Amino acid sequence: MKVIVVGASGTIGQAIAKELGKNHEIIRAGRNGLDVTVDITSAQSIKKMYEQTGKIDAVISATGGAHFGSVSELTPELNDIAIESKLKGQINLVLLGMDYVNDGGSFTLTTGIMMDDPVPQGASAAMANGGVKAFVKSAAIEMPRGIRINSVSPNVLEESLDKYGEFFPGFVAVPASRVALAYKKSVDGAQTGQNYEVY
Amino acid sequence: MKVIVVGASGTIGQAIAKELGKNHEIIRAGRNGLDVTVDITSAQSIKKMYEQTGKIDAVISATGGAHFGSVSELTPELNDIAIESKLKGQINLVLLGMDYVNDGGSFTLTTGIMMDDPVPQGASAAMANGGVKAFVKSAAIEMPRGIRINSVSPNVLEESLDKYGEFFPGFVAVPASRVALAYKKSVDGAQTGQNYEVY
Repeated sequence: MKVIVVGASGTIGQAIAKELGKNHEIIRAGRNGLDVTVDITSAQSIKKMYEQTGKIDAVISATGGAHFGSVSELTPELNDIAIESKLKGQINLVLLGMDYVNDGGSFTLTTGIMMDDPVPQGASAAMANGGVKAFVKSAAIEMPRGIRINSVSPNVLEESLDKYGEFFPGFVAVPASRVALAYKKSVDGAQTGQNYEVY
Repeated sequence: MKVIVVGASGTIGQAIAKELGKNHEIIRAGRNGLDVTVDITSAQSIKKMYEQTGKIDAVISATGGAHFGSVSELTPELNDIAIESKLKGQINLVLLGMDYVNDGGSFTLTTGIMMDDPVPQGASAAMANGGVKAFVKSAAIEMPRGIRINSVSPNVLEESLDKYGEFFPGFVAVPASRVALAYKKSVDGAQTGQNYEVY
């Protein structure tokens, strides 16, 4: 299968490319994409990416930014970062990619544990995660041509503990390689409308 | 208590004003607000509303638009309707209202059953509902000055069955008066971070 991984240079993206690269052709996309560049906050950029890749079998999004900060100091403008990137960016990969995905193909988006197990400063990211999860669950029941859609919700990564560990006290970090398996389940499996929790 | 009800002229808003009006002072807000006008898709308009109301004890949002249509025909632009109104509009009522809510006050937003029990054409609304629910759950753990935040997730209303019933086959409609009780629980109770399902 031909699989686009958006955010391929991130910690999760690299693990996905390694895992899925064993039996699929991987197109590595991102802001500094090795194969194709894309800025998911721009619908125009997403359209251009799909024009370059042509028909594919699976789209994986392992990307999406959000502002971290206390809810008392969160402004509409800072909240827009998550809206434009982690929420709309990922959903637009679906809406604009629908016609490029072959029959029976799949979309896999990324949510995150913070929507289920909140941490201080995480309200904006949680919002985006919750929006993506609900979109996936609802869109799944009416995707055309047997196209499936799932999301993966990772815990904090072992690889990111040095950087983000203090924000996730008591959380049991998971290795990116284990998170990558959930994306494999989504792409190579047959389920749809799921949010795979890797907690 | 002084309670703003945004969307006070809607079916749910009217039921809330009736129920909470028994023991609270209600400020009815909305696009054609009886007491104060507000367009929640405009941060400027929300700011103006709070300047007019001054300090309050509770903010209830019973409003928020979304485009209904099949996911195959959903465009980024049509999806923006739910983003700007049901999602960002409601969250901005919180972010911009924080300083106007008295110590120990509350915010109550509105989600909806479609995020949990999807229906065709509902993906964009489900997205907004899921985003609001996750924001509420996460924001609740760090709201300042004892301010609480909850959401209410109504089933399809008995009062709306003629208009929307065909979109909700097999759903057990609930009367708006029962939905209003969930908002009362949020305002007069002591819980926070909840999404009250009135299914």
